[in-house]
Amino acid sequence: MIEADLVKEAVRQRKARSETFLGFEYLRFSDDFKDVPRGTVIFQDTIVWGYPHIGRVFMLEEGLKEQFSGPFWVEEKVDGYNVRIFRVKDQVVALSRGGYVCPFTTDRVGDFIDLDVFEDDPDLVLCAEVAGPENPYIEESPPFVKEDIRIFVFDVMRKNSREFLSQREKLELIDRYSLPHVEIFGEFTHADIPKLKDLLFRMNEEGREGVVFKEERGRRAKYITSYANLSDIKVTTKNMFQLPAEYYTNRLLRLVLFMEEEGIERNAHLYEELGKALIDGLFEAIDQFKKEHRVYTTFRCRFHRKENAIALLELIRRTSKHIQVIERDLREEKGMWVLTFDKVFLNMTGLLGHLLSGGLVFD
Amino acid sequence: MIEADLVKEAVRQRKARSETFLGFEYLRFSDDFKDVPRGTVIFQDTIVWGYPHIGRVFMLEEGLKEQFSGPFWVEEKVDGYNVRIFRVKDQVVALSRGGYVCPFTTDRVGDFIDLDVFEDDPDLVLCAEVAGPENPYIEESPPFVKEDIRIFVFDVMRKNSREFLSQREKLELIDRYSLPHVEIFGEFTHADIPKLKDLLFRMNEEGREGVVFKEERGRRAKYITSYANLSDIKVTTKNMFQLPAEYYTNRLLRLVLFMEEEGIERNAHLYEELGKALIDGLFEAIDQFKKEHRVYTTFRCRFHRKENAIALLELIRRTSKHIQVIERDLREEKGMWVLTFDKVFLNMTGLLGHLLSGGLVFD
Repeated sequence: MIEADLVKEAVRQRKARSETFLGFEYLRFSDDFKDVPRGTVIFQDTIVWGYPHIGRVFMLEEGLKEQFSGPFWVEEKVDGYNVRIFRVKDQVVALSRGGYVCPFTTDRVGDFIDLDVFEDDPDLVLCAEVAGPENPYIEESPPFVKEDIRIFVFDVMRKNSREFLSQREKLELIDRYSLPHVEIFGEFTHADIPKLKDLLFRMNEEGREGVVFKEERGRRAKYITSYANLSDIKVTTKNMFQLPAEYYTNRLLRLVLFMEEEGIERNAHLYEELGKALIDGLFEAIDQFKKEHRVYTTFRCRFHRKENAIALLELIRRTSKHIQVIERDLREEKGMWVLTFDKVFLNMTGLLGHLLSGGLVFD
Repeated sequence: MIEADLVKEAVRQRKARSETFLGFEYLRFSDDFKDVPRGTVIFQDTIVWGYPHIGRVFMLEEGLKEQFSGPFWVEEKVDGYNVRIFRVKDQVVALSRGGYVCPFTTDRVGDFIDLDVFEDDPDLVLCAEVAGPENPYIEESPPFVKEDIRIFVFDVMRKNSREFLSQREKLELIDRYSLPHVEIFGEFTHADIPKLKDLLFRMNEEGREGVVFKEERGRRAKYITSYANLSDIKVTTKNMFQLPAEYYTNRLLRLVLFMEEEGIERNAHLYEELGKALIDGLFEAIDQFKKEHRVYTTFRCRFHRKENAIALLELIRRTSKHIQVIERDLREEKGMWVLTFDKVFLNMTGLLGHLLSGGLVFD
């Protein structure tokens, strides 16, 4: 439950806002407010709690020893975007981390998830990562999704509760409905740390993002490979001044601590990869600006229903700051609607416009 | 003149503060306030104006065309710290950019500057860069100062005036008193841009910081080599989280735009240099922390008078945030007092302490 007074206060402070979807209204917490996490939504009398923040450890061995006293599960952290999937009336919808109903994920969820799971238990909320090269939000994609998208369940909640099902309850549900899920490496203890170091070393080599540690029910922590940090840097530099600059310095430190933990030597190849990751995007932005007078990235994704493609563009337009959305193409292909659109980075476009024409900067 | 009311208001808002030096008080503007720049000081009835901000162009050719209509002088920008040197009563002192009397520079100024200049014209204020491996403030040093420090005059003001002397007046003064000065490449016009590109290309190869463009009297702009940007990154990463993160992202962009302007190709060597510059300092910080439980850099500088060495430590202690100053050694050597001290980076020390012991971070 969330107290009615708290909801009123959140609305008054513009931390909770009204949204509409499929003709009915819901309330969305646009920021953390008191103990209610951002992305929490209220559909009439139903609350779907926001997915909580998970703390990060920068050192594997010391982190596990410090954060977990008993056994813990280790699961893959997939590099995609976080959704919560559940049923409203007779429709299954997917919420973004921020609490918007995502027209793209909602359109595609039935391709990956056996929706019977919600027939049998309409209170379920599946927490999942959506990842792949054809998603409308992020440019990174894990090495094991070669086309389109896939959905990977990693947690289960229930409506009106902020607790997760225990690991065993979740595994049972995954098994019963053959739900697609993140790789679950098993349950481990401190004695297994050398094994886990090997695992993370391998994941890093394979270009995978990292892992989440979870008690059967309780504490969690995440740990990320240096590959993922490098990749985060690489895919964002074309629009470097949109993100907080700490995005980059934090990832440099994480990368260094991962190498330190895994005993990975610094060598010319690594330095080169890092240098490339940091500046190639800037050169690309300049080239693009010189040719086309704007800096942008093209996204492509597939829908069953044309209306959902249009609704997605509308959502991105409404929610992205300093981004101009330009539709390039929306056409039927092999029974799907294929949407192609550009996100124009207005900050980088404006900055390069000023600097390349000889503008002065006081810094 | 600065209106008395403005001074009172600045003091009330804590933008101007009282300081003491040599037994008399002065007022120091610790921030820009209305049109008074940070570092402006008032000694009784004498104002020494703060050195103004100089805008930066990111593109040489377009920048010169946009910022200057007629001829302009080109002078070297030396990589050191900015001081203003002038006489108070019968002592010549040097103010830091922020308006503190610097005990180190004040102690050494007579070694480099013919103080007769102030006998003949007690109203002069020499604006100069102090640079070299043995300075107490910055770790960078230009390639042409191999030991100790040197002082390079680049502008001249007068007490109670915020105007600079014209370029010709300055050159005359430099000549008459053989003042040490930054290299002055001459007066140029837009037609000389190809020559200036060559000059900057060479300066970059030689590891020099860049240039300042100045009208005979009036507009100014600065332009920095990619070498200098790389060097700024390299020498600061050991204490990366002390600086605003934008320090790094801004320098990446400048570096890329310099290469773009100069037609410098990206290659493995450059990427490697950049990768190294960004992470070697972090590895060094970790190594140091593991061995000594603190992250620090050692500085060394020479004084004539022991009291000035002690006053410098006191000043750095009082004015550096998140820095602990530890004196290592102060001894007489060949007629000079040689001070060695550590700056302990408390932010980095604390952060690594938390992370290396397995601490959790929510980001």
